[in-house]
Amino acid sequence: MQNVNEDTITQIVLARHANAANPRLRQIMTSLVQHLHSFARDVGLTEDEWFKGIQFLTDVGHITDDKRQEFILLSDTLGLSMLVTALNNRKPVGCTEATVFGPFFVEDAPEYENGDDVANGAKGEPCYVSGTIRGIGGEPVPHALIHVWQADSEGFYDVQNPDLAENQARGSLHGRADGTFNFKSITAESYPIPHDGPVGRMLDALGRHPWRPAHLHFMIEAPGYERLITHVFRSGDKYLDSDAVFGVRSSLIANWQQHAPGRAPDGTDSATAFSTLDFEFVLNPARVARDDAADAQKTVSAAS
Amino acid sequence: MQNVNEDTITQIVLARHANAANPRLRQIMTSLVQHLHSFARDVGLTEDEWFKGIQFLTDVGHITDDKRQEFILLSDTLGLSMLVTALNNRKPVGCTEATVFGPFFVEDAPEYENGDDVANGAKGEPCYVSGTIRGIGGEPVPHALIHVWQADSEGFYDVQNPDLAENQARGSLHGRADGTFNFKSITAESYPIPHDGPVGRMLDALGRHPWRPAHLHFMIEAPGYERLITHVFRSGDKYLDSDAVFGVRSSLIANWQQHAPGRAPDGTDSATAFSTLDFEFVLNPARVARDDAADAQKTVSAAS
Repeated sequence: MQNVNEDTITQIVLARHANAANPRLRQIMTSLVQHLHSFARDVGLTEDEWFKGIQFLTDVGHITDDKRQEFILLSDTLGLSMLVTALNNRKPVGCTEATVFGPFFVEDAPEYENGDDVANGAKGEPCYVSGTIRGIGGEPVPHALIHVWQADSEGFYDVQNPDLAENQARGSLHGRADGTFNFKSITAESYPIPHDGPVGRMLDALGRHPWRPAHLHFMIEAPGYERLITHVFRSGDKYLDSDAVFGVRSSLIANWQQHAPGRAPDGTDSATAFSTLDFEFVLNPARVARDDAADAQKTVSAAS
Repeated sequence: MQNVNEDTITQIVLARHANAANPRLRQIMTSLVQHLHSFARDVGLTEDEWFKGIQFLTDVGHITDDKRQEFILLSDTLGLSMLVTALNNRKPVGCTEATVFGPFFVEDAPEYENGDDVANGAKGEPCYVSGTIRGIGGEPVPHALIHVWQADSEGFYDVQNPDLAENQARGSLHGRADGTFNFKSITAESYPIPHDGPVGRMLDALGRHPWRPAHLHFMIEAPGYERLITHVFRSGDKYLDSDAVFGVRSSLIANWQQHAPGRAPDGTDSATAFSTLDFEFVLNPARVARDDAADAQKTVSAAS
């Protein structure tokens, strides 16, 4: 007869999982139970605190729907999302680093040509973005598929605000044969993550702000290369050192050059001030071409 | 400038909590973040596995409502609830041990007198329960408030099944001046925890069954003593060694004596077979009377 007590319970729970058919599930649940129990022991979790935790998770579940994912926000604000991104996207020095995918990517956003304006009416100062996509040896990557998305100057992605038209400040385009690309959008601005729910209350209790530094999201795909999911962050933003979701990597910070009204990169005369951004992306060769088959099996499809 | 990567992120997250006004919250969140990150590192959590976890928690949140608490079920089935119960209810040898509270207690259940039938129409074989409540020195505890609740012979608590009347097989009564009490109910039977939701799918994937061994819930309160929340488990039940929520402690197992139809303990003639249960509960003195003030501050109000 097992006697369940505070000393024996962890091993009793783990032994119960011996019959799990999937060894990877067993491995994950073994570690999860050990860490969950160690957490409760380390802090001497009280029954009242346990119940507050149950209530918090219940609130997170109840605010989550098909438009708002508070569990991802919780994972993001505890640094788990960025850790998982980093663990799964180790790349050789010189490659562009990955950062968090975030919850605001949209499948089937409009397709654009080089030079087009992806803002599609989104509020903000005009921004002219150009760049080059290369491999680790410096070779241009031709015709890469480039997805871009960003918030408007009021801090909203189109999908967050029911007053906004669909597909504002998002879209895809292909790079040219020489690896270059360019498009027009709006200047990235810092904005707060949704903080009117339980995660916002948690941040408040922890003395944390909900702001993210200004950034532009990129997802770049090309045959023979690993898919790159990243942001470019705007140099000088006051939240670069305190991103609410811990996504900033110093290699991803770039200068949004400010310009007075006048001749724009596309040859038109801009009646307003505008910014320009130029960034070089360096892709990692696809793992299947580099590693052995066992490693290839581990290749990860990012949060798709 | 911080550079967030897989090696630095945990310390960067913890440093962000330095401004938390509540030191206990800071302590809890520090341990939680450390264990959460260590879990992801230990198993090399993939992005796909992370997303499956997000989806699982979302499902747990969406099935939870004011009648069903799937997060408590998740805590129960991972052994966390029992661990927290054990950590917060250390008692001297000789005291009746505590076990999990469970989600099926109801405030303001009917009050009964000694000898009454608390079944109130619940399906099951008649059971005559008697007992005594004592202190650690053997002294009777007079007039203790005793709450009892249990599932019916089909495995449902009244609150689980909309076809059942309210307040079946639950109620409260007071012990007598000499510490004794008795009431009539139904014989406890093993039953499955709700397993038609995400926690049921988890148990299935882990090769675990959802059954709990037969038991009768007690919560006993008396001035000068710690509140006792426990079960009495039925000897011989085939699930005693595999309780889905890890609540069995060997000291809590008792014999439900089976009887053929005939003279019952209350003097009536029972036309059906029936069972009898007798159990002695030993209460721990209240902590405020025993320990110093610092320890008293930690006194825990159990899941109330």
